Amino acid sequence: MRGGIAWFTGLPGAGKSTLATAVAARLVARRPVECLDGNEIRAALSRDLSFSRADRDTNVHRIAYVARLLAKHGVLVLVAAIAPYADTRAALRSRSEADGHPFLEIFVNAPLTTVIERDVNGLYTRALAGEIPSFTGISDPYEPPVNPHLEVRTDQESCEACEQRIIAALAAAGLAE
Amino acid sequence: MRGGIAWFTGLPGAGKSTLATAVAARLVARRPVECLDGNEIRAALSRDLSFSRADRDTNVHRIAYVARLLAKHGVLVLVAAIAPYADTRAALRSRSEADGHPFLEIFVNAPLTTVIERDVNGLYTRALAGEIPSFTGISDPYEPPVNPHLEVRTDQESCEACEQRIIAALAAAGLAE
Repeated sequence: MRGGIAWFTGLPGAGKSTLATAVAARLVARRPVECLDGNEIRAALSRDLSFSRADRDTNVHRIAYVARLLAKHGVLVLVAAIAPYADTRAALRSRSEADGHPFLEIFVNAPLTTVIERDVNGLYTRALAGEIPSFTGISDPYEPPVNPHLEVRTDQESCEACEQRIIAALAAAGLAE
Repeated sequence: MRGGIAWFTGLPGAGKSTLATAVAARLVARRPVECLDGNEIRAALSRDLSFSRADRDTNVHRIAYVARLLAKHGVLVLVAAIAPYADTRAALRSRSEADGHPFLEIFVNAPLTTVIERDVNGLYTRALAGEIPSFTGISDPYEPPVNPHLEVRTDQESCEACEQRIIAALAAAGLAE
């Protein structure tokens, strides 16, 4: 079975983890799949790192290292991690493809006003009050994908509709089973 | 196919990487297998870490995190990393078994005098001259396993004999195919 990486990128609170988890749940009966959540991986591999540019890149490259190992063994890896810098994401794609694994950049998009309003973990309120330095979207940049493999708009589409489009994209890439 | 972890522990230069690589080469046609080499993983995941007790433990836990993910997906993971502290190795075994994956501690043993004489990378010479602080076996401890799953003596047995005994142990644990 074919391994590959689908990287869910987007602002905090856009729905990356929610969608990656939901898609994984739909696919797990059909094929090997693993979710790598950015926050969990930071705790497991990168407790030492900050949110500087360099450290964000280091963290993202560590996630990608793990993802490539799993993809090598036929696992579809759904990564839910901001990965805010476009050239870093491009480097991940190039590396993955050099190894022979598909890399799909899935842009989980919602406007900043929407994710601030959702404020799922109360982090935007704290970031806007200046309590959290280097918070993506508020005090740190997010460089949206210019040409993602797929874009879903979580402010406009239902969760189920987003899941279905993502699964269709995975199927078209030969990764849904 | 059943996943699991075989952790090759021993002094620097005892033959951990050599044996893990050789065993992987023999098994790769029969079943999914992956070698995780301690030095390579340090470069990929732990450039930030030192060789203090705490940092060695952090590094080992990161390796184990990756190994468990692979074992979950049916891969036999051969880890070649010193892991010098006995209670840390015990914690790795407990965690792995709690997840339902076999964890075999393979003691790759050769006397200190032998590995110093081999000095495969010239590191013992430098360590003995005081040029490398915290070097396992010289300026940092190695706590040998008291009850390993298997012990091989690379000063007494040929490489091929060690490989065969390791593969027999893996087969007995249902991990060789």
